[in-house]
Amino acid sequence: MSLDTALNWRYAAKRMNGQRIPEATLERILDAAHLAPSSYGLQPYSVVVVDDPALRERCRPAAFDQPQIGECSHLLVFATWETSGAAEVDALIRLMARERGLEEASLAGYRETLKGVVNGFASAEARRHWAAKQAYLAMGMVLAAAALERVDATPMEGFDPAALDAVLGLEARRLRSAVVVALGYRDEDADRLAGLKKVRWPRERVIARVA
Amino acid sequence: MSLDTALNWRYAAKRMNGQRIPEATLERILDAAHLAPSSYGLQPYSVVVVDDPALRERCRPAAFDQPQIGECSHLLVFATWETSGAAEVDALIRLMARERGLEEASLAGYRETLKGVVNGFASAEARRHWAAKQAYLAMGMVLAAAALERVDATPMEGFDPAALDAVLGLEARRLRSAVVVALGYRDEDADRLAGLKKVRWPRERVIARVA
Repeated sequence: MSLDTALNWRYAAKRMNGQRIPEATLERILDAAHLAPSSYGLQPYSVVVVDDPALRERCRPAAFDQPQIGECSHLLVFATWETSGAAEVDALIRLMARERGLEEASLAGYRETLKGVVNGFASAEARRHWAAKQAYLAMGMVLAAAALERVDATPMEGFDPAALDAVLGLEARRLRSAVVVALGYRDEDADRLAGLKKVRWPRERVIARVA
Repeated sequence: MSLDTALNWRYAAKRMNGQRIPEATLERILDAAHLAPSSYGLQPYSVVVVDDPALRERCRPAAFDQPQIGECSHLLVFATWETSGAAEVDALIRLMARERGLEEASLAGYRETLKGVVNGFASAEARRHWAAKQAYLAMGMVLAAAALERVDATPMEGFDPAALDAVLGLEARRLRSAVVVALGYRDEDADRLAGLKKVRWPRERVIARVA
C-alpha cells in the first residue's frame, strides 16, 4: 500500500475495539520512533509503551476519560528527557565513536557544539519545547508507520501531563509526557467520527510555492 | 520497499548532487504534509516550497552557507502561521461543515472549544511552539515519504529564522519559518557523512516498556 493511500485511510479514531496488535507489527511501528532523526542526533525523548489494560485504565482520568485509552491495544507516551545535558552529550559522543570506529578525540569539536546546544537554552521550558518538537517529528513517523500497517493511531494532546506522569512514575525517571498516541483498531460502529470525510485546508493553503 | 528499510537508508545528507526531483514524486512527498494530522485539525503552518536555484542561493547565508541549500532540488520551509485565531477557527468550521455536509450550527460547541484553544495560549511564543510542534509532526511524515521515494531529505534547524523570512518575504504573509528540509539526492563522493553507520541510542533507551 502506498503511503498516500495509508494516510488517506488513517484518522484519529476516538473509539477502538480492544483488539491486540501482534507483537511483530508493534515492533515495526516502534522502529520508526527509534530511527527518527533528531536535533544533532540527541533524540531527547523516550516512547513509553503502556500495555497492561489495568494500567491504561489508571491513565484514563489523566486524559479526560477518553475511551480510546482503555480500548486501544497499546498507549505510547512520548516523554521528553529532563536530563538533556553535558552527560547525555558525552554518552552520545562515546556511542558515536564506538559505532563508527572513530577516536573520541576526533569528535571533540562536535562535542563542544552539542554542549553549546544543550546548555544554550534560555530556560528549562525552552529546552522542553525543543525536545518535544523532536518527539513530534518521531510521532509523525510512528503515525505513518502505523497507517502502513493498517493500525489505527490517535495522537492526543488532551491530557494532564503532571497527572499522567504521576500514574506512570515518569518523574522518578526524569521524563515528562509531551504527547500521547493510542494504537489499536477502530470501532467503526461506536465511533461517530468513523467514515467522515477527512478535512484539510485546501492544498494551496498548506503547500505554498514561491517563485 | 518497507518503511523500515527506507528509514535505515535515509540520513541527513549534507551534500547533494543538484539532480532535480520529478514533479510527480515531489507532489507525493508534499501530499504527506497536506495529509498530516494536527491539533484539532487546525494545521497552523504552511510548507513553503523554494524551487528556483537563484532564490535558494539567496537563502544560503541565512542558513550558515550550508551547501545543501544550493545543491538540493527543492527547499521546504515549514513556517507557522502568525494568524491562528478566531478567524482561522471560523474558516475551519465552515470548511468542515461544507465538506461533511453538516449545518454549521451543529459544530457550535466544537467552534467554541477551538476558539478556547487558539485564544488560550499564555503568549505568542507559546502559540508558536504549539504550531511548530504540529509542523514537526508533518515534517516527520515528509521525511518518511521522501525515504520511501528514495529521495534524500535533510532536516535543518541551523538557520536564522528572521533572515530566512526576510529573503522569502514570509513576514508579509504572516508566516514564520520554524524548520527547513532540503530535498534532493545525496552526493556520496562529496559527503563525508555518506555511508557512515547510523547512530541511535540503544533501542531500550528510546522505547521504554512499563509494566
